[in-house]
Amino acid sequence: MSAGSTSLLFVHGYWHGSWCWNEVIAQVAGAGRLALAVDMAGHGLRARRPECLTRRPYDSEALATEVSPVADVDLDQAGDLLISQIRQLGRGGPVTVVAHSMGGTVLTRAVQQAPELVAHAVYLTAFMPASGVPAIAYAQMPENAGELVAPSVRADPAAIGAVRLDLASDDVGYRQQLRDAFFGDVAPAVADAAIGLLTPDAPVGIALGATTLTHDGWGSTPRTYVTCARDMTVRPALQQKFIADADAAFPDNPTSVIALDSSHSPFLSMPGQVADLVAKLD
Amino acid sequence: MSAGSTSLLFVHGYWHGSWCWNEVIAQVAGAGRLALAVDMAGHGLRARRPECLTRRPYDSEALATEVSPVADVDLDQAGDLLISQIRQLGRGGPVTVVAHSMGGTVLTRAVQQAPELVAHAVYLTAFMPASGVPAIAYAQMPENAGELVAPSVRADPAAIGAVRLDLASDDVGYRQQLRDAFFGDVAPAVADAAIGLLTPDAPVGIALGATTLTHDGWGSTPRTYVTCARDMTVRPALQQKFIADADAAFPDNPTSVIALDSSHSPFLSMPGQVADLVAKLD
Repeated sequence: MSAGSTSLLFVHGYWHGSWCWNEVIAQVAGAGRLALAVDMAGHGLRARRPECLTRRPYDSEALATEVSPVADVDLDQAGDLLISQIRQLGRGGPVTVVAHSMGGTVLTRAVQQAPELVAHAVYLTAFMPASGVPAIAYAQMPENAGELVAPSVRADPAAIGAVRLDLASDDVGYRQQLRDAFFGDVAPAVADAAIGLLTPDAPVGIALGATTLTHDGWGSTPRTYVTCARDMTVRPALQQKFIADADAAFPDNPTSVIALDSSHSPFLSMPGQVADLVAKLD
Repeated sequence: MSAGSTSLLFVHGYWHGSWCWNEVIAQVAGAGRLALAVDMAGHGLRARRPECLTRRPYDSEALATEVSPVADVDLDQAGDLLISQIRQLGRGGPVTVVAHSMGGTVLTRAVQQAPELVAHAVYLTAFMPASGVPAIAYAQMPENAGELVAPSVRADPAAIGAVRLDLASDDVGYRQQLRDAFFGDVAPAVADAAIGLLTPDAPVGIALGATTLTHDGWGSTPRTYVTCARDMTVRPALQQKFIADADAAFPDNPTSVIALDSSHSPFLSMPGQVADLVAKLD
């Protein structure tokens, strides 16, 4: 481990888990830097699945109506968990945190609550909401037009408490839409393996939560935004809006920007480039 | 990172993926030691799933007969992959490798082929087959009587090329049998989340492969066996047979033994104890 470099903590987005960072972590650790990927609240080993997915025959009505077992997960809980994960890795010292997609919303909360624990906040095509604005408001902005997640959702999030995908769908077009939404430039076999590891219910409470940002809190923490030019989940215009809103609110601490020509999931399509760029961050 | 301690690489067993080590890795990394969990060949982001799982209605006949997309994965491929993963983490220097369950078969192959890369081979209730004996022969020995995997298999491995589980079964008794086989002492919600992350097809080729062991190869590498007293997948008597066979073949390099009072999955039921014991190994 090179002297002075902080440890790296990676947090995934909705539906994903720690597993999505495997190749990036292997390369970062292979370069001697301490790195760890964690599960977000309600995801990975903290996921809970609707019962209707273990009933046969398949019942689309149940999928559309069963209240999610992660309906209780909110941004408070997700933020507290991330803070505890950062604290464990950093042993009280600051850590560089890389967040993907909805993981950015959780990172923003954690940084605002405990800015002393985060050396650098890195948003990889992530939600980076402005003060008091819930992530869900950004997801629905005109800048996100053309995104492919909303048409893939199979239940009303307000009714079931989760953003639910039908990951075992027999609809070839639907399955292709999932690949296009998340994994457009990923090798098809890897994309399908990743779909097999996704969790069907992402707790909508995380996207409904908002964080009040202060100059001494989130506003003073160094931040980098990594844009992904071919993203069909967080569209490029929305990525730019996150950056513009942050820089308008905290002009004395502007966002550093790095551009990748990737889909929503460069950790799968170009893990070496992701590892290289985070390796350069303190 | 304490001076002189080797990096730690963790490899999971059949059906699992890098994700199963999350809590152990978090604690090991939190203590400042470089640690990495990887996917075995045919698993995690390298998994491929049978097509019948994305057809509706559910077809038990198709599940029992569809040739597995991982039927081509064998111990040669799995061993080569693990060697490359060890090499990446260790940058040419030796690494301590912790293997669980069928991961032990792959670790034995990797150590025999590249003993200079492995400082210490740690078998966590893992297959540790003797020279020339395939893991599948051990799985079927009288010492493994009472194990709950064989009755959970839903297709003939010889016919489909994989050991296939029906992870989305609607049979309450079957689902309980899976929990009992793998996760008997794991919190029920975590056990169910883990079942949701398993891959249905484990390539039988890994269990069919054998490795010729030599004194200068596997026989000279320090090894530790961690026994799990309540294991319903690799039964305690089989764990003892692995140790006895190894010590009979290489009496000048006896196995160090550490005992845990756990199910097959102490990384989920007692991750702190697993982290503590591996932290003490060089």
